[in-house]
Amino acid sequence: MADELTPAQTALRDTKRLLRVARTGALATIDGGAPLTTLVGVVSDWDGSPLFLMSELARHTQNLAADARASLLLTSEGGRGDPLNQPRVTLGGTVIRHADPHSRARYLRRNPKAKLYADFADFAVRRLWVETIHFNGGFGRADKLTVAELMSPADDIADLIAAEDELLAEVDALDESAMARLVAGVSSGRRVWRSAGLDAEGLDLSAGGATARVEFSAPARDRASWRERLKERVEG
Amino acid sequence: MADELTPAQTALRDTKRLLRVARTGALATIDGGAPLTTLVGVVSDWDGSPLFLMSELARHTQNLAADARASLLLTSEGGRGDPLNQPRVTLGGTVIRHADPHSRARYLRRNPKAKLYADFADFAVRRLWVETIHFNGGFGRADKLTVAELMSPADDIADLIAAEDELLAEVDALDESAMARLVAGVSSGRRVWRSAGLDAEGLDLSAGGATARVEFSAPARDRASWRERLKERVEG
Repeated sequence: MADELTPAQTALRDTKRLLRVARTGALATIDGGAPLTTLVGVVSDWDGSPLFLMSELARHTQNLAADARASLLLTSEGGRGDPLNQPRVTLGGTVIRHADPHSRARYLRRNPKAKLYADFADFAVRRLWVETIHFNGGFGRADKLTVAELMSPADDIADLIAAEDELLAEVDALDESAMARLVAGVSSGRRVWRSAGLDAEGLDLSAGGATARVEFSAPARDRASWRERLKERVEG
Repeated sequence: MADELTPAQTALRDTKRLLRVARTGALATIDGGAPLTTLVGVVSDWDGSPLFLMSELARHTQNLAADARASLLLTSEGGRGDPLNQPRVTLGGTVIRHADPHSRARYLRRNPKAKLYADFADFAVRRLWVETIHFNGGFGRADKLTVAELMSPADDIADLIAAEDELLAEVDALDESAMARLVAGVSSGRRVWRSAGLDAEGLDLSAGGATARVEFSAPARDRASWRERLKERVEG
């Protein structure tokens, strides 16, 4: 089935996946006129936008206070073969403080270790408001994508947001064979997967440092249709 | 023995290692005033400076033509556990064309696949002239290093450069048990290691996508002393 995708569809699929599974990214900011790249922890917001938990004391945060423009590189972690032939994406835009408690909860769900410092006065969640997207899928495979096509629905998903804990608990209650069917095709190797987050277009799983993305056939905007989509994937 | 290193010594050791084993880095350039991060292939020059093979057509190369300032993030690949608790380094400086044939040979030795395009008219080797070094070893472990302490001797190593092929052939001719002693402590798992490059302070090995660094107890500036140092490491 994947063989039938056009190059643009492949770029879109791979970019969506990078947004969802990336745990870190290389963030470039303007540092007194010069560029500066630093490693940052990242989590995807409901629509796929990168969320960060940054200290005011960090140099990149101070840079962003002076000039909010940033560029974020997300790469395929743990890929085999030539890393320059693996998909990666550069997202350009501005990084702005993001007080939404649902986004904060989302960050901490995926990065439970961040609870150690998330409440310190100098830490706050920030979000990259994506304006430009450069996908590079490897040699001879580059595409520009639009924000409209890349981002997942997030405007009309209040019921999904309210049901997040409930739905993720249902995922974690799946028996071993149901979970195996769910990750078939998106991950190899035997692992104990746990839910890491959800959105209208799918589900993220983690197992130690490994991450896997289960993509739905169509978006689900409320808990009933999200359960439907999950059932489709479990029943394969 | 490693336990006895001071934090500054650990930072220096880890940074030297990152310079030598990194196969890719996140390069930030200035793109019409905004930052841009892209994934680039990287190889260490004799002194440890990052070398790139870039096309004039690439956006980062065009950016560098207008403003040579750059920032390069090198991370620990394939590390286990929290990636934000792994050593990484950000190198700041300027990227300039580097016509030295020894550096070019060095690039191609480590990236044999680059021979496919290295001779195209738009490709040339460039080098990051490092001015600033920010090491981050994980939570609460950050250090500023100086170029003088970080870089390996490279001014007086003409004999070593001339003998590179010969010395690397000697490494590749080591028997299995000698090679195993050489990589003991710097890599885990059974692999078929091959030489990837050398410098005054040690030897780089590769096995498929994996890289390992063998560090000498003291710099070797000519072939005779390099053989001595290698022997010490083989005999452990």
